[in-house]
Amino acid sequence: MPAPVLVTFLAGDEGPWRIEAIEPYRGESLARATRLDIASGHVVAPARARWSLRGSTSNARYVERRERRTLDALQAPLGRPEASRASLIPVRKSAEWWELTQEERRAIFEERSHHIEASLPFLPAIARRLHHCRELGEPFDFLTWFEYAPGDAGRFDELLMLLRATEEWRYVERETHVRLAR
Amino acid sequence: MPAPVLVTFLAGDEGPWRIEAIEPYRGESLARATRLDIASGHVVAPARARWSLRGSTSNARYVERRERRTLDALQAPLGRPEASRASLIPVRKSAEWWELTQEERRAIFEERSHHIEASLPFLPAIARRLHHCRELGEPFDFLTWFEYAPGDAGRFDELLMLLRATEEWRYVERETHVRLAR
Repeated sequence: MPAPVLVTFLAGDEGPWRIEAIEPYRGESLARATRLDIASGHVVAPARARWSLRGSTSNARYVERRERRTLDALQAPLGRPEASRASLIPVRKSAEWWELTQEERRAIFEERSHHIEASLPFLPAIARRLHHCRELGEPFDFLTWFEYAPGDAGRFDELLMLLRATEEWRYVERETHVRLAR
Repeated sequence: MPAPVLVTFLAGDEGPWRIEAIEPYRGESLARATRLDIASGHVVAPARARWSLRGSTSNARYVERRERRTLDALQAPLGRPEASRASLIPVRKSAEWWELTQEERRAIFEERSHHIEASLPFLPAIARRLHHCRELGEPFDFLTWFEYAPGDAGRFDELLMLLRATEEWRYVERETHVRLAR
């Protein structure tokens, strides 16, 4: 487990990733832009950025040891040459979610919504990195970054539909899907 | 549960709290200063500050529902007129701690170290607010702020000794106690 890494996603007209679509799912969308850049560390968004979102990697909050072992054995790293499609999904959960205690959130997240278990069939095709931003004064709680090959784009949409149908997702009050290609 | 609040602790020669002592417990200490100011929100530390530490309130990570009810019934708010003594205790835990999964950390924190249960007899005399800073790029993981009356200072030291003797504290690699009065 490396130390937390702060990451800034910068949308504008520069960067290695082409923004193919911005699809609001719940709440306010994000402004249109053509390119996405990803910077490490504390970055001041340049004036030309349409929007910027910051998040930090962190320790796992819900995964238990046996699940950790399964995930470690299955998951792929970011940056695979064939993974030329990506999705950035900023999510904010409701105050009601954050008022729940850890064991109540875990029960909804995994015992009832099977967030981890349901994601396993999509590994290693879909690589993922989660960034936390609730404590950074950002408009979202999480920024999840996914990478996959063009041929797995349909599988990715399937995973998304599956998660959005869960009890956990009732607590999502803002979510936008930024589809990318490079 | 209010939204997270970012707080900046500024040590220098200004502010309502007089720094009585800075007592390193593990690892590097903090530089000497005479006064502590507490600012809300994103604050750029003024040049005259000897040091500044930022943290954010957040959702609870370990407290379970039955413990939450007990704590809510017992704990006192910050800012009581009689609570003219305070302690700021910045703590960093080891990489080993953060590699543990949630249920492993909870088992050490409460089932084996009784962090919550052992603290109950000290309520409501000692009021407390926890700030998280692991994801803020700060040199500590937590900043805990305590307030108590002068007559409870001995009780506070007792609580501190009790916690430092636990299994949980083996994972603490840096800790300094800043004693304050106003």
